[in-house]
Amino acid sequence: MPDRADATRGRGRPRSADTDRRIHAAALRLLADGGPDAVTVEAVAATSGVAKTTVYRRYDDREAVLRAALVEAMTPPSEPAGETTQQKIRWALEQTWHQMSDVLGRGGLAAILGDSSPRFTDVFRGVLTPYAEALVGLVRADADAGELREDLDPDLVVTLFIGAYLGELLRRGRVEDGFSERCVDLLWRTMTRP
Amino acid sequence: MPDRADATRGRGRPRSADTDRRIHAAALRLLADGGPDAVTVEAVAATSGVAKTTVYRRYDDREAVLRAALVEAMTPPSEPAGETTQQKIRWALEQTWHQMSDVLGRGGLAAILGDSSPRFTDVFRGVLTPYAEALVGLVRADADAGELREDLDPDLVVTLFIGAYLGELLRRGRVEDGFSERCVDLLWRTMTRP
Repeated sequence: MPDRADATRGRGRPRSADTDRRIHAAALRLLADGGPDAVTVEAVAATSGVAKTTVYRRYDDREAVLRAALVEAMTPPSEPAGETTQQKIRWALEQTWHQMSDVLGRGGLAAILGDSSPRFTDVFRGVLTPYAEALVGLVRADADAGELREDLDPDLVVTLFIGAYLGELLRRGRVEDGFSERCVDLLWRTMTRP
Repeated sequence: MPDRADATRGRGRPRSADTDRRIHAAALRLLADGGPDAVTVEAVAATSGVAKTTVYRRYDDREAVLRAALVEAMTPPSEPAGETTQQKIRWALEQTWHQMSDVLGRGGLAAILGDSSPRFTDVFRGVLTPYAEALVGLVRADADAGELREDLDPDLVVTLFIGAYLGELLRRGRVEDGFSERCVDLLWRTMTRP
């Protein structure tokens, strides 16, 4: 977003990039907690502390705010850290789950599953897809390199990893620390050669 | 529900139990498609073909309709069919997924995940829990009997099975026939003894 709105203001004001960051962070928090319908300009203003008139100078409407916040959050996945195959997969899995828990949150995940804001379903899914695909690519490369079972279906493994988070959330209402390790431990046996 | 409302009516009218069944079926269809907020008395009347005044004679409000429909749908899981351990687990898994896909539907699942109607979250979860627990019990009994790995975590396996459905729905927007077989095939290796 251009800087024009705040460019002429005094020193005490947060600069424009800060303002956008606060607006985006507020939009994502509202999405995570209450789903897309909770992202209104009023709520974004109240949550971010940015005046409603300032939000409207920068964005046409609440949908534009949400879209900008999501585009901002769509950072591409980085190279997996770790030395062993399992460490790299754990790392990529944590990144994927981070997109689910901290970017989309329960509200965004529910909106995809329920298709409750159809115009946004693909945008929400786009927050997750590059991470899921990076994970699929990693598992496939490891299978091709003989590190994992050759006849493994990498795409199905990734669906199970993504689903594990959702299944725990559905059954218990929360996902505790250490859950991802338990999932990798359980699935590792099916991923490796006998 | 008591029969009093329709008891004195003519022969051409559906009997009371039929009327309730139609109201409940409409409520569940609306829940599955649009989540709990879509279950209004107006929509139930329009979907079921039962007059709005008739719905109101039987139920105080839309929440009472939804609650009655869910209680009706909470049939306890039956004994697993099949001869082998794997056949019984497949059967119990299909029953569990049926509760997810056909009773709660996308709208009900999304409402649990997003906790969007907090007063109903536990009721929705209650549609699934007995099935999930039956599946946990089955996997545990098979592990105890030496049919599956002794150190298997039955509860985590069931979370993965439940999650698989959600993961596929999240990634693709639908779950195709044959997906459950692929999941059992993949997870079977981690469930059985080496």
